[in-house]
Amino acid sequence: MLDETVLGVLKSEGSATFMTKGPDGPHLVATWQSYLDPIDARTLVFPAAGYRVTEANLAHDPSVQMIIGKQRGADGAALGFRLSGTAVVQAEGPLRERMKAKYPWCRAAVVMTVTGVERILG
Amino acid sequence: MLDETVLGVLKSEGSATFMTKGPDGPHLVATWQSYLDPIDARTLVFPAAGYRVTEANLAHDPSVQMIIGKQRGADGAALGFRLSGTAVVQAEGPLRERMKAKYPWCRAAVVMTVTGVERILG
Repeated sequence: MLDETVLGVLKSEGSATFMTKGPDGPHLVATWQSYLDPIDARTLVFPAAGYRVTEANLAHDPSVQMIIGKQRGADGAALGFRLSGTAVVQAEGPLRERMKAKYPWCRAAVVMTVTGVERILG
Repeated sequence: MLDETVLGVLKSEGSATFMTKGPDGPHLVATWQSYLDPIDARTLVFPAAGYRVTEANLAHDPSVQMIIGKQRGADGAALGFRLSGTAVVQAEGPLRERMKAKYPWCRAAVVMTVTGVERILG
């Protein structure tokens, strides 16, 4: 899922959008691409400071989507991806500790399992 | 709605995420912040090349959300906004001509009326 092309986008800084679905409809939050830690070929972990609506939505429906993108630059053309999958919020455990070590304000880790990758922004 | 602070984010390039809602659930697409043309204090217009699902969703439910963001830089802190409102796709008319003049691949203009602005990514 998270091949070199997708991981290459994450090396470029920019905002990433993360969508959950809840009883009041879909909810968008943003993070930074540099915060997305690919811990294996299908898992992205990133820190939550607030994300209270996101957390409540995930308890109700784990399905998520994410948009990442990279501008055209010296290293190639513009490129983006729509990632789909599921996610959980972990307020304790090794992934939360891993995030907390990098981001002292981290209250929980968002752990996304990527099951679909579609290219956008070609 | 679209005050100097919000417009300042658009001056920074990056991907913007646009969300519509349809019978198959919410759908995310991306565009570039430089493509977002603020034609008045509550209206953003941007070009559609594909966006077929987006167009079908808007015919069903005009409510939309958008995420824009700006990295920390020499000109200040990181900053982002969640914009909410409604949108229509116009395949003809002056706004589509305005977009087509800048982007020859533009098949239609997406016209978003912004009714809510929330700060994120502080």
